[in-house]
Amino acid sequence: MSHALSKHLLVDLHGCPADLLNDVAALEAVMVEAAQRAGATVINSMFHHFSPFGVSGVVVIQESHLTIHTWPEQGFAAVDLFTCGTQTRPKRALTHLKRALQCTQIEVRQFMRGQGDSSAAETDHNIRE
Amino acid sequence: MSHALSKHLLVDLHGCPADLLNDVAALEAVMVEAAQRAGATVINSMFHHFSPFGVSGVVVIQESHLTIHTWPEQGFAAVDLFTCGTQTRPKRALTHLKRALQCTQIEVRQFMRGQGDSSAAETDHNIRE
Repeated sequence: MSHALSKHLLVDLHGCPADLLNDVAALEAVMVEAAQRAGATVINSMFHHFSPFGVSGVVVIQESHLTIHTWPEQGFAAVDLFTCGTQTRPKRALTHLKRALQCTQIEVRQFMRGQGDSSAAETDHNIRE
Repeated sequence: MSHALSKHLLVDLHGCPADLLNDVAALEAVMVEAAQRAGATVINSMFHHFSPFGVSGVVVIQESHLTIHTWPEQGFAAVDLFTCGTQTRPKRALTHLKRALQCTQIEVRQFMRGQGDSSAAETDHNIRE
């Protein structure tokens, strides 16, 4: 695989039902299905429920990863879809996520990784702690 | 924790030694130490070596996640540092990664998650497969 073909979608989903965002088993199923719908090969997944609210989860795929972090009390989920290669279809994962997480608003930002896009890059000394 | 305080750094490291980027045990140690130096609480980690080249790894932290994907034959690593809350210091993780991975060039892009930054957002119908 070539890193020049790595695509990274940052997906912020708002207005999702709180119960759903706090259901670790349901979210793992949603994310694994999202990976499969994208045509990715799932290697492993790891999900964690925080007390009292919130879930963090990772699906490691042959083509990189999918992650989710949820804030049920705010109806918010932050999802990352990081895929490499020409065979995966992250848009299909996105379509599944929108429907499954029942969001009312979605923001998607897309980046290529490793291309040295200086217009979007910052040197690290500009990164504030 | 509040999603408004979620910070996401996309870090592309170039010019790293190939042997290092293919050493799954070394990379797991580097990434776990990066999380610790940032002041994060490590929940779990999961690393995978691809044959013949490349490593994917995830460190799930109380404050979200760190991930890495490597292309040893191209000296390239894509790292994500996703942290929430005001206590973590991702810059410290970055400093450690730069040194540990011996990169000659680094690009860092920083985003806040969940703020509805429409200037950087795309609606999903603009995302090409």
